[in-house]
Amino acid sequence: MIAVFGHRNPDTDAIASALVYARLLARQGLEAQAYRLGELNFETAYVLRELGLEAPPMLPALPAGTEVALVDHNESAQSAVNLTELNVTRVVDHHKLGDLSTQAPPYLRFEPVGCTATVLLKLFREAALSVEPEEARLMLSAILSDTLHFRSPTTTADDRAAVEFLAPVASIADVEAYALAMFAAKSDLGDTPVSQLLKMDYKVFPFGNPAQQWGLGVIETTNPAYVFGRKAELLQVMAETRDSDGLSGVLLSVVDILNETNRTLVPGAAEQAVVQGAFGAGVTDQVADLGERISRKKQIVPALETYFAARS
Amino acid sequence: MIAVFGHRNPDTDAIASALVYARLLARQGLEAQAYRLGELNFETAYVLRELGLEAPPMLPALPAGTEVALVDHNESAQSAVNLTELNVTRVVDHHKLGDLSTQAPPYLRFEPVGCTATVLLKLFREAALSVEPEEARLMLSAILSDTLHFRSPTTTADDRAAVEFLAPVASIADVEAYALAMFAAKSDLGDTPVSQLLKMDYKVFPFGNPAQQWGLGVIETTNPAYVFGRKAELLQVMAETRDSDGLSGVLLSVVDILNETNRTLVPGAAEQAVVQGAFGAGVTDQVADLGERISRKKQIVPALETYFAARS
Repeated sequence: MIAVFGHRNPDTDAIASALVYARLLARQGLEAQAYRLGELNFETAYVLRELGLEAPPMLPALPAGTEVALVDHNESAQSAVNLTELNVTRVVDHHKLGDLSTQAPPYLRFEPVGCTATVLLKLFREAALSVEPEEARLMLSAILSDTLHFRSPTTTADDRAAVEFLAPVASIADVEAYALAMFAAKSDLGDTPVSQLLKMDYKVFPFGNPAQQWGLGVIETTNPAYVFGRKAELLQVMAETRDSDGLSGVLLSVVDILNETNRTLVPGAAEQAVVQGAFGAGVTDQVADLGERISRKKQIVPALETYFAARS
Repeated sequence: MIAVFGHRNPDTDAIASALVYARLLARQGLEAQAYRLGELNFETAYVLRELGLEAPPMLPALPAGTEVALVDHNESAQSAVNLTELNVTRVVDHHKLGDLSTQAPPYLRFEPVGCTATVLLKLFREAALSVEPEEARLMLSAILSDTLHFRSPTTTADDRAAVEFLAPVASIADVEAYALAMFAAKSDLGDTPVSQLLKMDYKVFPFGNPAQQWGLGVIETTNPAYVFGRKAELLQVMAETRDSDGLSGVLLSVVDILNETNRTLVPGAAEQAVVQGAFGAGVTDQVADLGERISRKKQIVPALETYFAARS
């Protein structure tokens, strides 16, 4: 039995790609089971609810040597706690390669596209496997989520082609309407605790040498006013997280999906110096205007890497 | 310009796959140039001579940040000296994943098949690119070389299917006769210096924790008598290499291609203890009988990993 899972703080791609890849492996005669490493966000919950699908179960503790397949991540810090003891035989991903190593020759399929599901669709088509409507809906949802329906600069021609292929199979006639419904569901954050808001889409990155650890959260929303209404609480929990997690800084980017802008919360002096130095951004009332930099992967992390490398 | 290259001490797959992958990338509109990291072995020289092809040039010193594509390897110890400073955007390989990391999301295509060229052929076919006769001959030669024309336990159904596809395109009617000609060329070692014999197909592996470094050479030959005729010289250079390179041990497996057997040279007490412990092999006159273990990757390295792990 191969355990298939995406990263911690799962997003729609991490969940959908785990479900779909497990089905693809099963179709190829392998026993596979999808899991998740954390709670669903509201967007993913919407996607599964609309399909009448259960969320995959939480990943149990896996004994050393268990065969696993990773989707949408490859770094140990974003994976099962004991990843380095597990037997990684397959990875389908669209991130940079981090600290993964394997015990034996694996199947690796990485492409620099906007979404893991775009790569998964290629696997289906290369293997001449039909894509079922449910699988099509899952992959389509993942691509719309990761690319913000092509608004993100991470979008590639392959992602657009995948959506064009998948939408009719998934019986989604109006793709933009479906995407907006997903984004609205994601933005309906209600009384979510601020600590959860911060860590909903949050990753810790090492920058510079010797490495500083920085926590970078993103909230992609069609309703930024809601998030800024909770600004004081958020700034406080960001500062607490920085100190309790031994980080050098924490940033939370509030991405306005519809206007394609990024205003980032800046809890302290260290963060303010970095956003000014790395992005030349003005900071007013602990909010930095990062303009159209809406992709953490393509626009935020590379700028921070360059900034810290120049100071190493 | 993307520099495309295989591992140090190149074998036929390392050279052929670099040449073919550079052509594939060019066909996709990218500027790419194949290189080699060392001298050709006699088999590879035969393959290129029969095709009337020049060997790819030696890899020059590459400035930090140069874009490179790796074939048939991924570990820094087997690659360009400054690999960690280079920008690896593509890897096509069939080995376990070692210490590679990338600066940005790469194209990675690893499959646990017998030869890199088997994976390359899939890339051609997935991209609906025609395979030219010269490319077919290069890929066919690589697969026959790596799998010892299907004698090696590393052989998979995909390798067999690739050969079946490639042989007619390459106009090779009698595949076994062509393979035997390649193996005979490889075995015609003449007055090759023993230091070169040892390192013709040689890799250093870390075993155990803390890691011991072991040098593992293989000579695949249709004429083992030739190698054993130079046994005294070889044992001496093996012991010297162990000491000069700061290794814990050096082994040289003489693989009889036609009889599919492995007799391994054992230069000292450390090596003798390990081959007895890891393989239960008898050692007579500094030669260990490793029976049918003809694959370093599948049969030698895993047994040594298990042996040293149990002692860590």
